[in-house]
Amino acid sequence: MPLENISCNKTAGGWHKQYTHRSEVLNCDMRFAIFLPPQTAAGQKVPVLYWLSGLTCTDENFMQKAGAQRIAAELGVAIVAPDTSPRGEGVEDDPAGSYDFGLGAGFYVNATEAPWNRHYNMYDYIVNELPALVEAHFPVSDQRAISGHSMGGHGALMIAMRNPERFSSVSAFSPIANPMNCPWGQKAFTGYLGSNTETWKQYDSSELIRKAEKKLPMLVDQGTHDNFYIEGQLRTETLAAAAKANNYPVEIRMQDGYDHSYYFMATFIEDHLRFHVEHFNK
Amino acid sequence: MPLENISCNKTAGGWHKQYTHRSEVLNCDMRFAIFLPPQTAAGQKVPVLYWLSGLTCTDENFMQKAGAQRIAAELGVAIVAPDTSPRGEGVEDDPAGSYDFGLGAGFYVNATEAPWNRHYNMYDYIVNELPALVEAHFPVSDQRAISGHSMGGHGALMIAMRNPERFSSVSAFSPIANPMNCPWGQKAFTGYLGSNTETWKQYDSSELIRKAEKKLPMLVDQGTHDNFYIEGQLRTETLAAAAKANNYPVEIRMQDGYDHSYYFMATFIEDHLRFHVEHFNK
Repeated sequence: MPLENISCNKTAGGWHKQYTHRSEVLNCDMRFAIFLPPQTAAGQKVPVLYWLSGLTCTDENFMQKAGAQRIAAELGVAIVAPDTSPRGEGVEDDPAGSYDFGLGAGFYVNATEAPWNRHYNMYDYIVNELPALVEAHFPVSDQRAISGHSMGGHGALMIAMRNPERFSSVSAFSPIANPMNCPWGQKAFTGYLGSNTETWKQYDSSELIRKAEKKLPMLVDQGTHDNFYIEGQLRTETLAAAAKANNYPVEIRMQDGYDHSYYFMATFIEDHLRFHVEHFNK
Repeated sequence: MPLENISCNKTAGGWHKQYTHRSEVLNCDMRFAIFLPPQTAAGQKVPVLYWLSGLTCTDENFMQKAGAQRIAAELGVAIVAPDTSPRGEGVEDDPAGSYDFGLGAGFYVNATEAPWNRHYNMYDYIVNELPALVEAHFPVSDQRAISGHSMGGHGALMIAMRNPERFSSVSAFSPIANPMNCPWGQKAFTGYLGSNTETWKQYDSSELIRKAEKKLPMLVDQGTHDNFYIEGQLRTETLAAAAKANNYPVEIRMQDGYDHSYYFMATFIEDHLRFHVEHFNK
């Protein structure tokens, strides 16, 4: 699988780079970004934080707005930011043009419904294809953590709980924590997976956490003034209750006054990076 | 002059807010952003860093991408980011639709040529109207510093040198340091100021630094891999030579491998904020 480098910026003593490649599981060309900390220039293999972004985002939003590179450079962690859906020529979008289904809104599932099942297999892309590509081409170790925001927070929690042997820790900002029971999740799961809600449970963090056997270190930050939280799209309490029922030790921090924006993430990303580093090599 | 608050995000324990207001000197409605650090919630009056952005930017780019709030919160400094030109209904744009003249490209001058002289008076806006507005409405002291990037680096250096009593220090990233002698500056100055190059000198930092009497603390960061630097748009060396001729103690740091992007600024903005704080209250 060849990679094409399309941009390169020095930052925080390391390098932010964007690559394109053919994705077999998504059946289209994809772009992702990687931050390589300065330690890699000296030949060191570093652990990787996979970052999953939210609705409408690409690989760029987090890299440009979260201010994560400064601390990743200090800690010696690479960051990989994929796109949020398949994209490009021939990839179907929501005919209604909504922001919360289709392009930019892959919800990190493997679609089973036509026509979405031709390209919308973000679960396989994030779990298998992308890490294999990253580990084949960059100076990284097999230590992995995963985090994300909103739809990407859902993706991070869900993927980590289904693949606890692949990640040493997981965190999320403002995750869609119970997608089966919120408008965003119901719309996406109906479209990608069909109307049998039994098949939705494998992608719902509040369902998964109730039955999880291997328990990963898990940190969740949620702003109290987040409109989507207030409107019931995120359902942090459902996750908290399900975790408690299974004695899953998730740390959920309600952050007073913060909203759903990158201004919130930029405030606490340092905590998340330090949290993940604490759990590498254990 | 009433202000209308149009957005508010908690970040780094403080507040990022956007406001609109009628500008008398620009003869249009304008938007700016302010970051108020947590110290202001306790009633403390804080110094202000004015940040001038580059071509095509608005008040948003720096606030979203530089990661400055974290350190401004620690240091107790407010940041004010204005727009880069007059804007909105009735404001002329370059009929050719270029990115380097007209909207988003005010160059921080007072235009003398029609039709630009109806609105394009960014010099007066930044020097007088905006600080008066900020100081009337927010818990800030009369301690001011100024910084900026590219076209905004030109604006910061030029405005500080012409108004040394109003600022305690000045800094710039990748400034257009000798606009009279580069394609960007020549195009803008011809359009806004006419063809008499004598009138251009009052807006050229390399001219101003040669004659400056009051010498402000001045810090400039320039990336060695900045394409615009390599193409001759920035002319850092001309500024350095003119400063030397007048014994103006500017610190110019050539930063190896860095380019013209926000990834560069995000790397060194902490140094700039600490530099300005060192010179407040002296």
